[in-house]
Amino acid sequence: MRAAVMREGKLVVDTVPEPEPGPGQVLVKTLACGICGSDLHVLRHVGRFVEVQERSGSPFTMDPRRDVVMGHEFCAEILDYGPGAQRALPIGTRVCAMPIILGTSSLATVGYANDFPGGYGERMVLTEMLLLPVPESLPTSLAALTEPMAVGMHAVEKAGPIADDVPIVLGCGPVGLAVIAALKLKGIGPIIAADFSPRRRALAEAMGADVVVDPATCSPYQRWEELAVPAGVDPRSALTLLGLGPQPRPGLIFECVGVPGVLQQILEGAPRKARVVVVGVCMESDRLEPSLGINKELNLQFVLGYTPEEFAATLTALADGRIQAAPLVTGTVGVDGIPDAFAALAQPERHAKILAEPWREGRLS
Amino acid sequence: MRAAVMREGKLVVDTVPEPEPGPGQVLVKTLACGICGSDLHVLRHVGRFVEVQERSGSPFTMDPRRDVVMGHEFCAEILDYGPGAQRALPIGTRVCAMPIILGTSSLATVGYANDFPGGYGERMVLTEMLLLPVPESLPTSLAALTEPMAVGMHAVEKAGPIADDVPIVLGCGPVGLAVIAALKLKGIGPIIAADFSPRRRALAEAMGADVVVDPATCSPYQRWEELAVPAGVDPRSALTLLGLGPQPRPGLIFECVGVPGVLQQILEGAPRKARVVVVGVCMESDRLEPSLGINKELNLQFVLGYTPEEFAATLTALADGRIQAAPLVTGTVGVDGIPDAFAALAQPERHAKILAEPWREGRLS
Repeated sequence: MRAAVMREGKLVVDTVPEPEPGPGQVLVKTLACGICGSDLHVLRHVGRFVEVQERSGSPFTMDPRRDVVMGHEFCAEILDYGPGAQRALPIGTRVCAMPIILGTSSLATVGYANDFPGGYGERMVLTEMLLLPVPESLPTSLAALTEPMAVGMHAVEKAGPIADDVPIVLGCGPVGLAVIAALKLKGIGPIIAADFSPRRRALAEAMGADVVVDPATCSPYQRWEELAVPAGVDPRSALTLLGLGPQPRPGLIFECVGVPGVLQQILEGAPRKARVVVVGVCMESDRLEPSLGINKELNLQFVLGYTPEEFAATLTALADGRIQAAPLVTGTVGVDGIPDAFAALAQPERHAKILAEPWREGRLS
Repeated sequence: MRAAVMREGKLVVDTVPEPEPGPGQVLVKTLACGICGSDLHVLRHVGRFVEVQERSGSPFTMDPRRDVVMGHEFCAEILDYGPGAQRALPIGTRVCAMPIILGTSSLATVGYANDFPGGYGERMVLTEMLLLPVPESLPTSLAALTEPMAVGMHAVEKAGPIADDVPIVLGCGPVGLAVIAALKLKGIGPIIAADFSPRRRALAEAMGADVVVDPATCSPYQRWEELAVPAGVDPRSALTLLGLGPQPRPGLIFECVGVPGVLQQILEGAPRKARVVVVGVCMESDRLEPSLGINKELNLQFVLGYTPEEFAATLTALADGRIQAAPLVTGTVGVDGIPDAFAALAQPERHAKILAEPWREGRLS
């Protein structure tokens, strides 16, 4: 089959072996697969990615010297079942699924594995018990956003109980936009969103941000203070610091940038006792001053992925329109255009989410 | 009055002005004052300490070019009241108090201020409304441990709800020992304590640690796995990682070392989804790999100080014997011996907590 393949640190379009469904597995046609920022990261730092996975005790490993077909944000169509399948869904059903292969004794991630091609190829093998049918009314292009939007849902869930917190979302790429959508879905706000790119700030507003900030001209923490501190209260006064009298609303910061230096900037800017949810994946080593965290009693919650429940709830929210994700999709591309789409995504002014449709040929549009 | 004074980056014994109690304040005689590791830190890095305080928006500031009498872990005796006092406690009452001066519009820390001498001087001024009388039965030397033991109580409180977590305490200086005492008080365990020093490991056992580990020869995370993972369960298996079947008990790590590199070691060693409470104050800039935190979904809670309720509860627990802190006190010293005591505390094999008794002369014993 045709696929965009990561080979020796480069993305090439080639013919690769057809996947074959084993027991408990299903063969699907990839209808659409979002290109994820993590894939751009992995293409650039694959050795480092694999090394950190292994040092984290992760069971998801791949050999970067062998071919990898990436792509884990997909909507697909059932073509055939492996041996001994339950066949609960008819052939031809559109499905989404967590990109995980449950083997008898091991795990693999669809899109970060050697033996299971991801959504940048024409066909994939998925785990039957993880399949979720896509409601008739939901377009394939939006169903393919289930995976990235579930990342936002999970980040908000992992923030813990949220009362009248005023959240700040730093970075409005697809991850930040997913967090904004999840906050909006839960009725949490006002939401402050910060990004250097005017295009991404416009997308943040489209997804539900109440206040957008260009960090080059305005501190998001200044805006937080204007919105979170009651009139007449000095957040630095002795009374306020001792918890006496009216208090600022809690600070809740989502780190959706994932480059070195951002955590330190957060330690410097965050209000006292703020919770920080780290969603952006910084692959490099980073430097920070722990004593700032101590003095402010900050909390850092690192997050990854989502639970099966969050994944299913995201698909439902997309289907019934409680998450309006259409503005995210800024382009589509056939299998031969995937390498160009990777290059285009490096420019934040042009694109947010590009969907690959590997069943067809065609350049980026 | 006589005092050990921080002057131009050195500790000298000299005569300094008598403090005078203002409105709402009380004049006390320092009966005993513990020497805190933070004071050793501040003596070495005073410029950095003040800079980070200011960058954290802290209202507690001092001018390192002027004299500072440190000392914030005290038991004292009421000598006199300032104007307009309520005088709820008779002259001569032994008291403990949070080391905070509540001014009309500002805050100061007793022991880190220019205008309010701390417990390394013969007399101090304290805030009347913060005074807690010391129960008759509690020796002065143990009452002086209220402040450092409250730090441990606060760290355990800030860890959040604790179910059957198996805690690891990294570093068994006074902070780590206070955390062990607070865990023991709450019935949380088994407690794993790690320190390179045999003396400190013995103290950890005396304070209630169930398992002590020399990190030079045995990984505390290995011991955690032996204690927290049910027999027959592979913590790295697909089933366990998906949350199916019996799960390991939660990981809860207390960072009580406070030197660069420890946070990175924790990110590397911690089990998945562990909570990390950062109590040790690392004054330097530090380096770590956020992607390890992401892959394991770790939580880092930075903590500082204690609440008034925790402070009072600690004094009560010391008085009724639920915290047995006597083993912590490894020496006492008169006012002229305080500089030598600072030097002695740099050697972990000799001392844990040295109490200064600035009302007398005398070398370290």
